[in-house]
Amino acid sequence: MTGAIRKETTNYRRSQSAATIRKMSVLVVGSTALDSIKTPTAENPRLLGGSASHAAVAASFFSPVKLIGVVGDDFPKKYLQLYRRHKIDLDGLQIRPGKTFHWSGEYEENMNRRRTLETELGVFETFSPALPESHRRVAFVLLANIAPALQHHVLDQMARPRFVAADTMDLWLNIALPDLLRLLKRVDLFILNDSEAHQLTKEDNVIAALPKLHKLGPRFVIIKKGEHGAILSSPKGMFVAPAYPLKKLVDPTGAGDSFAGGLMGHLATARGSIETNLRRGMIYGSVVASFCCEGFGLTRTTKIKRAHIDRRVRELERLTRF
Amino acid sequence: MTGAIRKETTNYRRSQSAATIRKMSVLVVGSTALDSIKTPTAENPRLLGGSASHAAVAASFFSPVKLIGVVGDDFPKKYLQLYRRHKIDLDGLQIRPGKTFHWSGEYEENMNRRRTLETELGVFETFSPALPESHRRVAFVLLANIAPALQHHVLDQMARPRFVAADTMDLWLNIALPDLLRLLKRVDLFILNDSEAHQLTKEDNVIAALPKLHKLGPRFVIIKKGEHGAILSSPKGMFVAPAYPLKKLVDPTGAGDSFAGGLMGHLATARGSIETNLRRGMIYGSVVASFCCEGFGLTRTTKIKRAHIDRRVRELERLTRF
Repeated sequence: MTGAIRKETTNYRRSQSAATIRKMSVLVVGSTALDSIKTPTAENPRLLGGSASHAAVAASFFSPVKLIGVVGDDFPKKYLQLYRRHKIDLDGLQIRPGKTFHWSGEYEENMNRRRTLETELGVFETFSPALPESHRRVAFVLLANIAPALQHHVLDQMARPRFVAADTMDLWLNIALPDLLRLLKRVDLFILNDSEAHQLTKEDNVIAALPKLHKLGPRFVIIKKGEHGAILSSPKGMFVAPAYPLKKLVDPTGAGDSFAGGLMGHLATARGSIETNLRRGMIYGSVVASFCCEGFGLTRTTKIKRAHIDRRVRELERLTRF
Repeated sequence: MTGAIRKETTNYRRSQSAATIRKMSVLVVGSTALDSIKTPTAENPRLLGGSASHAAVAASFFSPVKLIGVVGDDFPKKYLQLYRRHKIDLDGLQIRPGKTFHWSGEYEENMNRRRTLETELGVFETFSPALPESHRRVAFVLLANIAPALQHHVLDQMARPRFVAADTMDLWLNIALPDLLRLLKRVDLFILNDSEAHQLTKEDNVIAALPKLHKLGPRFVIIKKGEHGAILSSPKGMFVAPAYPLKKLVDPTGAGDSFAGGLMGHLATARGSIETNLRRGMIYGSVVASFCCEGFGLTRTTKIKRAHIDRRVRELERLTRF
């Protein structure tokens, strides 16, 4: 970015009214959880986790974030402080009597397969997202991985958001497919991984799966391929995004949520065409996901600054130039 | 490429002596075979195959090629004509009494796994590559997949080639590892796939495998990841090359050889730094490999022209820009 362009952007922002600035936030709904994560080399009990936590922190590097979720009265204060340090608006976070959603899982040697050991839903079992009035007009909505019925319920309360992205997981394909299919008619961008794409379309080849996914509703589809990057399919064609190459994976939990969060955070503040912004957003998302993988839970992601992200983005530019 | 640069390149070539022009060829050694390939949808007996055939045809789109190999007296004349149509120099191709090397294999449903049904070595069993005098001063050498002892034997006959690349396969890691390790001290570029990299270094993570592969000798290492592209590691850092996205894979046999051939073909004619040329060469290699996968054996690759390749390269530029 040249100095001239940077200045112009600043002026543009300054000239916006308070109402317009509120529109530039990202609303994130998803799970807010405590994760106990075992890997071949370590065990980490009750870390801050959940799709919404990862996505919200990732998005917070780029734009203001409003979090929708629920935690129990056992939820550690330090994690509320962590959200606040990232300037995440917690007006939509319910604190209910009972236990916070707790997930425990174990990764295998090569970190590619994980096994759920235990899931305690706690207060999540009766969660009904209720949006404060101030949240209903947010322009960018990320429906992070959560039951499709809850994703619907959030959308029902929103006033014509400008851009809606939805993530999911295999569980919902198995137990809530009709809800998910209905949701796909209501979103601009559907983010899923390669094995979910296969499950949903019966196509082994992700490129062949793409038109079938568009037919389900979304104008934009992103298929995540972990260490192999991600592919965007849009009306203007495809974009092949690299993953940031990592020597060592400490814990991939939340990498996909971080990717989606970073992407939407960038989208909410970027100028230019949606196509260009999605491409660049995927690069930002990849980079935040790479930091996420370098520590347990959010431990690494919460230690970085925007400058660290920008450095890796420049590295990715060099790594892919030909 | 601007008009000015193109003109300069032309002048540069014109000013070279005949001896220098010969140096711009690629010498390709490897297997020359008849392949019988079964996939879930079709069966194709006795197609032209072998690592050297695929690599030589791929390289021929970019530079003159000299082929080193052996076939039996049963080798169909139409395949010799095919080589000649690609202006491949056959002075180093031995035609011996006996049968041509015949491989038959079967691909599974998702085309990712293949199973060898039968291997008849034929005249290949006693093959000893002998280089005509005119071949010994070629600057660019591609030791395509073949027994490491034969790859050594070719190098032994060469006068200080400018750039040597070697490909391999899991078989040689299993039965000829000492020969292969000795070979790696003699090559500039080692090309292998991700599972071979894992087997050789015991590293699950390809990025972590790279420094271990450099320690074995080669300055440049390329790890092929099939549909996920390829990674170059060089003294100046890494390059992440995309694969050309294909909706339908007909037959991936020879895709890796085509990649290596396209890459070396480009390298032999390109001006500029080795780093830049390798990056661009990988893109050309990926594109030729994509055509290879769209037909059985060499049937699709031999139907394309340079313009088809350039079109897909431009597409890859658009697909990766951010």
